[in-house]
Amino acid sequence: MSAPVLEVTTQVAAAVDAPETAWGDRFAERTRRVTSSAIRELLKLTERPDVISFAGGLPAPEVFPLEQIQAAARRVLEDDGAKALQYSTTEGDPGLRELLVRHMERYGIRVGIENILITTGAQQALDLIAKLLLNPGDRVGMEAPTYLGAIQAFSAFEAQFLTVSMDDDGMRLDELEAVLRSGPKFLYVLPNFQNPSGVTLSLARRRRLVELAAHYGVPLVEDDPYGQLRYEGEHLPPLVVLDAEYHGCAQGERSLHGDVIYLGTLSKTLAPGLRIGYIVAPAEVIRRAVQLKQSADLHSSTLTQRIAAETARGGFLDRHVRLIRAVYGARRDAMLEACGRHFPPGVHWTHPQGGLFLWATLPAGVDTTELLKDALAQNVAFVPGAPFFPRGGGQNTMRLNFSHATPALIEEGIRRLGAVLARRLGS
Amino acid sequence: MSAPVLEVTTQVAAAVDAPETAWGDRFAERTRRVTSSAIRELLKLTERPDVISFAGGLPAPEVFPLEQIQAAARRVLEDDGAKALQYSTTEGDPGLRELLVRHMERYGIRVGIENILITTGAQQALDLIAKLLLNPGDRVGMEAPTYLGAIQAFSAFEAQFLTVSMDDDGMRLDELEAVLRSGPKFLYVLPNFQNPSGVTLSLARRRRLVELAAHYGVPLVEDDPYGQLRYEGEHLPPLVVLDAEYHGCAQGERSLHGDVIYLGTLSKTLAPGLRIGYIVAPAEVIRRAVQLKQSADLHSSTLTQRIAAETARGGFLDRHVRLIRAVYGARRDAMLEACGRHFPPGVHWTHPQGGLFLWATLPAGVDTTELLKDALAQNVAFVPGAPFFPRGGGQNTMRLNFSHATPALIEEGIRRLGAVLARRLGS
Repeated sequence: MSAPVLEVTTQVAAAVDAPETAWGDRFAERTRRVTSSAIRELLKLTERPDVISFAGGLPAPEVFPLEQIQAAARRVLEDDGAKALQYSTTEGDPGLRELLVRHMERYGIRVGIENILITTGAQQALDLIAKLLLNPGDRVGMEAPTYLGAIQAFSAFEAQFLTVSMDDDGMRLDELEAVLRSGPKFLYVLPNFQNPSGVTLSLARRRRLVELAAHYGVPLVEDDPYGQLRYEGEHLPPLVVLDAEYHGCAQGERSLHGDVIYLGTLSKTLAPGLRIGYIVAPAEVIRRAVQLKQSADLHSSTLTQRIAAETARGGFLDRHVRLIRAVYGARRDAMLEACGRHFPPGVHWTHPQGGLFLWATLPAGVDTTELLKDALAQNVAFVPGAPFFPRGGGQNTMRLNFSHATPALIEEGIRRLGAVLARRLGS
Repeated sequence: MSAPVLEVTTQVAAAVDAPETAWGDRFAERTRRVTSSAIRELLKLTERPDVISFAGGLPAPEVFPLEQIQAAARRVLEDDGAKALQYSTTEGDPGLRELLVRHMERYGIRVGIENILITTGAQQALDLIAKLLLNPGDRVGMEAPTYLGAIQAFSAFEAQFLTVSMDDDGMRLDELEAVLRSGPKFLYVLPNFQNPSGVTLSLARRRRLVELAAHYGVPLVEDDPYGQLRYEGEHLPPLVVLDAEYHGCAQGERSLHGDVIYLGTLSKTLAPGLRIGYIVAPAEVIRRAVQLKQSADLHSSTLTQRIAAETARGGFLDRHVRLIRAVYGARRDAMLEACGRHFPPGVHWTHPQGGLFLWATLPAGVDTTELLKDALAQNVAFVPGAPFFPRGGGQNTMRLNFSHATPALIEEGIRRLGAVLARRLGS
């Protein structure tokens, strides 16, 4: 059982509700929008041990730095246990925030500790941003498909969605301008190895996006959980840096002009069970977000923040990211090769330069929710793509995770899936 | 620095705002309601090391079961490290939930694992309940004074407050009925050793409250962070149990008739830095709350949930609670005796049977926010009472925490505070 599998267990749609009771009438309007999905029952089956599942979004436990975390936990509790177990500030552990300042600088993002708020995973960052910015009915621009957890977080604050389709270079610019012109409260973008599509926004489009957003006065929320997990090609500058450059901030200055909120996480580079994400934003935005976080959970776990800081320090985080890249890069290669070998003609898939996911598109008319039943009969699983589209569509798409299974299991699972596809496509 | 000190750093009032920028115009309506308070600057001074502070709400670090938590952390990471660092289910660790089922049964609350959702501290429980139930403008009934974190959490969802004053037996029943008749979405109650007043709701009033709430069809949210920390008198049954009895649930049956949501926490009995709270409610409510928690932070830290369960098991939690009672009971006694010795005539204070706080009321016309400046000049601090009143008032009240300072420091601090009071009251 894992959150990223359950991530697809709710859906923004008029779906089957629980029987009406006194409570049913008491739930707030926003609660009614987050309803159960029929897909939930199907996805429970993907957790059977005999199933090779590409459905989750789990990091591989083999790459958790278990020994280092054990040693860090021991040191933190021995040296400063009472503080690590006490209440702490809402902003987050200062040592951890300083470490993140130095870590982000290596990726070109220059900020101060006052620009960082530690969150209970990056999911909480999405929740706080929605709470901070969205009045009921406000519009949010986003890619289609996009991260399901963002759709859920924004739906809980009664957002309306404006979507931009994607091609192999990310958001299509011809659709983007119309969306920006329609006055969204913000544009939510996953530029690197997007979840679910695996697509990366090209440098030219990043520059143009920053220009257009500035022109229309639309702030950007840049979600970057996978940016460090690149397996080929050059690192591309994040939108937050390009926005500062566009507005004439000189090299060496803070790379926060002020119209981009950047989100990061340690879930993919250390371990998700620590629940450590972070928001990077102008100090004014951080101050407000701190007030909202205070009422949301007071602060994230003091203990796991301290353990994360103690594990990551001394350059360990950078060294460890190189190890993860090697392991996941090999798995991505295994999946790309297996798809090439086993998928029938008519199936197209993305070539992710990093991240955790590959996205496959089947001929129009094939319903991947139906197909999942066939796949489960062959003990292989994926996530149907439709829930990732906030305004519908995508019935013929699927997301395949390559970070969790070994290369051998990837080969076997894709072989089985290829056979299922071939039968369905009649090839 | 600690969250419970910062807890009083925001206030629901039209207060001084940050300078208007592009972001100022972008914030949602609810964000504007949570604004900075002038009291924040004053409270920063309470953190000077030379100040004897009764301002916080901190557990004493001496009672943290540090050795047991160290051992538990070591075992969890050695025996099952990869799982403890991975994503986990939104509902919470099954082992921890089973342990809580058994633990609550000893306090008369009989529920199943499907009735429990683990939250990131009990503060998140308040946030989720507000998100689950409140449309903008909905009314919430509550005691005045009440827990500031609840005022903040409900304000963030644009609640209107209806308040019931308190005397030494808790909520005044003569005011309660009018509030219930005004149609609040729910009534928020802290029956045991209330924060901030230290007052306990009497058994007779508990029974009448349950009857009245049932009569008017108003659900109860029962917040019980301190219930196990009783230093004198008999344990009183929680509202959730009385509600089940009232509706004719037989002994031995589940004590959830369905109209009470009960909130608990391990912050006061194990350690707050783990961030473990829980919601106990009918399965239908839990299912909805799980969906909202999924979009709020996916799940609480897998690691700290596992450590908490491993620390608490085998009866340790019950044994440890007895130790905390002995330590805090002695500190409460020290504060009561010191108040009797040093406070001038005209000052009244509560006699808490448990919990962390004592509440003092000064003659009308004395402003405790002003008085705090005098107190800080004498290196002693408290929290002015006004922010705890959601509809204003309480300028002549203060909250005094007795759990954090040693008996000797309590005596010295109250002596200093008594002198400040005597000067101000001219006695």
